[in-house]
Amino acid sequence: MQKTNTQSITITPDELFNHWQGHRRLTRKVIEAFPEDKLFTHSIGGMRPFSELAMEMITIAGPGVLGMVSGEWKNFDEVESEFTKKKPTTKKELLNLWDSITETIDEAWPKIKEGRFQESELVFETYEGKIWSHLFYFIDNEIHHRGQGYVYLRSLDIEPPYFWER
Amino acid sequence: MQKTNTQSITITPDELFNHWQGHRRLTRKVIEAFPEDKLFTHSIGGMRPFSELAMEMITIAGPGVLGMVSGEWKNFDEVESEFTKKKPTTKKELLNLWDSITETIDEAWPKIKEGRFQESELVFETYEGKIWSHLFYFIDNEIHHRGQGYVYLRSLDIEPPYFWER
Repeated sequence: MQKTNTQSITITPDELFNHWQGHRRLTRKVIEAFPEDKLFTHSIGGMRPFSELAMEMITIAGPGVLGMVSGEWKNFDEVESEFTKKKPTTKKELLNLWDSITETIDEAWPKIKEGRFQESELVFETYEGKIWSHLFYFIDNEIHHRGQGYVYLRSLDIEPPYFWER
Repeated sequence: MQKTNTQSITITPDELFNHWQGHRRLTRKVIEAFPEDKLFTHSIGGMRPFSELAMEMITIAGPGVLGMVSGEWKNFDEVESEFTKKKPTTKKELLNLWDSITETIDEAWPKIKEGRFQESELVFETYEGKIWSHLFYFIDNEIHHRGQGYVYLRSLDIEPPYFWER
């Protein structure tokens, strides 16, 4: 494609913050929509139950935003095993952990330095790319797995929350 | 939250273009992964088969990018009924239609005017918001429904393409 309007603003940092937290609010509603037992057990085609998918989102988002601020990243397996130690076993615990990550993001976001999104960095000792591309991956991965949660809910005859309600 | 680094670049128009087409390349692989009949018939919990979900993505993306260029939008129901007239009945036809939309996006994107993403507009005579938010909705909606396609594939014992392969 032709190069064009390269410096034109697409989405501002504030808009990106609200976009992310909006998606996270919707995912929280999906967690809430699951019956307590199905949240931890229901599966289709050998896939992980929704609690596990939510734990992945939590593990990425919390350490992810802190790394975006500090430039310091642990190996993802290490981060994951830390979260596994405090793995919630009830919906309430999972929602509490979710909410604590929401606060982490609220507090960390304003500390992200000017120009940071266009810096390239190796994150979680695994993925190289610009900071925006990592954040987009975090968000996209959440949308992807949440979409799977919608199928789980439908298969349980439960109406999921509206996709556009953030 | 505090307002911060409001003018800092997050993602450039060129990067956003590649991000979108990257997601569309992955969705194309998901279409390809379905057995011909299952693409048009397989469903879980009363949801639409993946061919219908792909048609929704096509209907949004093609007229969507043209509207982003021109500022002219038809009602979404009208757009949808136009596409319904030429609805593919084979995987090959669906992939061909998908590829024609890829070309539409390739050709239209460089014509998007400077500053356009920050303009507010009513699109498809239904949704009011900034152009970036509409485009993000198009992309997010595709990721959401494609994630559902992953569950369909897994339930058919078919390995989906890697999420990070664009």
